[in-house]
Amino acid sequence: VSASLLGDPDAVRRAAARLATEVVHTPLLSSPTLDRLCRAQVWIKPECLQIGGSFKYRGALNKLLQLQPLLQMKPRHARHVVAYSSGNHAIAIACAAAHLDCKATLVMPADAPAMKVDRVRAEGGSIEFYDRKVDDRVAHSELLGERLAAPVIPSFDDPDIIVGQATLVLEMLEDARGIGVEIDDILVPCGGGGLLAGAVLAVAASKSNARIYAVEPAGFDDMARSLASGRRESNTRRSGSICDSLLIERPGELTFPIIAGGAHGGITVCDDEVAGATRFAFRNLKLVVEPGGAVALAAVLAGKVDFTGRTVGVVFSGGNVDSALFGAIIAGESAAEAAA
Amino acid sequence: VSASLLGDPDAVRRAAARLATEVVHTPLLSSPTLDRLCRAQVWIKPECLQIGGSFKYRGALNKLLQLQPLLQMKPRHARHVVAYSSGNHAIAIACAAAHLDCKATLVMPADAPAMKVDRVRAEGGSIEFYDRKVDDRVAHSELLGERLAAPVIPSFDDPDIIVGQATLVLEMLEDARGIGVEIDDILVPCGGGGLLAGAVLAVAASKSNARIYAVEPAGFDDMARSLASGRRESNTRRSGSICDSLLIERPGELTFPIIAGGAHGGITVCDDEVAGATRFAFRNLKLVVEPGGAVALAAVLAGKVDFTGRTVGVVFSGGNVDSALFGAIIAGESAAEAAA
Repeated sequence: VSASLLGDPDAVRRAAARLATEVVHTPLLSSPTLDRLCRAQVWIKPECLQIGGSFKYRGALNKLLQLQPLLQMKPRHARHVVAYSSGNHAIAIACAAAHLDCKATLVMPADAPAMKVDRVRAEGGSIEFYDRKVDDRVAHSELLGERLAAPVIPSFDDPDIIVGQATLVLEMLEDARGIGVEIDDILVPCGGGGLLAGAVLAVAASKSNARIYAVEPAGFDDMARSLASGRRESNTRRSGSICDSLLIERPGELTFPIIAGGAHGGITVCDDEVAGATRFAFRNLKLVVEPGGAVALAAVLAGKVDFTGRTVGVVFSGGNVDSALFGAIIAGESAAEAAA
Repeated sequence: VSASLLGDPDAVRRAAARLATEVVHTPLLSSPTLDRLCRAQVWIKPECLQIGGSFKYRGALNKLLQLQPLLQMKPRHARHVVAYSSGNHAIAIACAAAHLDCKATLVMPADAPAMKVDRVRAEGGSIEFYDRKVDDRVAHSELLGERLAAPVIPSFDDPDIIVGQATLVLEMLEDARGIGVEIDDILVPCGGGGLLAGAVLAVAASKSNARIYAVEPAGFDDMARSLASGRRESNTRRSGSICDSLLIERPGELTFPIIAGGAHGGITVCDDEVAGATRFAFRNLKLVVEPGGAVALAAVLAGKVDFTGRTVGVVFSGGNVDSALFGAIIAGESAAEAAA
């Protein structure tokens, strides 16, 4: 499947056409202050402004639109989908299912942020909680899917999800070209790699030479290590960072080969750098970014790579953060204090 | 001047052309959640994403660009402008002056939000504080202007400022038409009326039939009362609302006749409604809006006018809010608790 995705440059454009009137075409933002600080031309893609508050809606809706003919063969009350997610994918599936008049049951960890749980419910999604430490969420979801006769929608390891996420980077590259700007580097927050694999496809589809970087929280740098070793490495921990949306066990089976063939490298940022970036976005950009969504900005602000004089695209992947954590971060507390 | 502005529909378009590559073309955002709650099609113009964090940059830069030939006749060290403002106009002038390689001194009240003071300084502006209760900021600024041989830039009562602000509403109307949407109602946060007068000019310039509403904080409804009586009424208080950016004494001499000829009416919202709107923007739209910038959203959410089935444009006029106040608001405290 990976090979066929890479071999079909039109897949991303077809997804973009399918989603064109269905998703928010998020703007490309710049900030003189940020440019001055980074000595680079930085373009932000604020996907926190997307429906559901994260980029996940692109992949979720793209997938459900593919499943729609199948779902519409069932009577209305029996149209149902299942997904497992720590939060943003769950919200996205709940939104997309509501939009397509379909029920959704979301399998979420008991310690998911309250904001994410609340938004799933506000969109009409049902939630089944599991314990991160003991339960196997995939097995649980598959059983649930069988019981409900409902397809289980993966959060990243799926071709339709990947090309859906790719539309974000395609928009970024094309909007930049529309104002005469060619992007040199793209920094993408990385969990399982759905958005990152999409970035590789979008860069290929638009014949861009942009270098793609995976940005991960310290202690959860499975993608950086996998890119270095050439095979899928795992994280030893499953919690212990403010970046709740990026704490995935290891790169995906489908996403990794695509990423390995196209990403330039991995960058790791610590929680305090992430908190600083979240605070910067509040103060200077007036955007609400969740910690996991701010890692790419953190990498640029912390000068992890020398981008002097370059044109850098930075993805803000989501904005679903609890008010208590956000309040502590903007008050200037360290990440450890904020998470306490 | 008002008559000539109203009589020159091209003034707004000339300003828009002048600012096109200089300001952020802010997006037009929608939210299914918001539409559902309001039973209307709501389009948000998030001007908190503008340079300097508010719409004020449009008018400020438009004005300074007109003054540039004059300023450039002076030696570089003598290029200087002065402005008085409780905050957002000061930031905007500091940003615009820095952009045009000119010095700026800003006359600000001693109780201005720390965020606003910090941003003026970060942009290289000098600040002279005054006491809201005893000092006459206009007289003080004029003396300062004479001493520095620097023009004093008004915050709203100036034709170039007004047409600069008008470009915001022109963008809103034209971007909406670009996606096949005709806006029925425009809700604008109102202090001295610079943006509101601009809205009247933009609606005329684009041959729109949109109704324009001035939204003000309770206790500071000078514009609503002035529209009702037909002459400029004053507020009795100068402080005592979380909407620090909207606490102006009375409508402008230039702005009021324009507004009286084109605005549909005034809406008043209380501080708790404003706090609720700010919280809604945090949770559902992922935008940082300052209380004064959120009054138009507050009016829609509180159902102050029945907009059922209509297409409503809502301006978020700025996002410069102190982290302590914002943290208290998003934590769900009442406005009185948050301001304490």
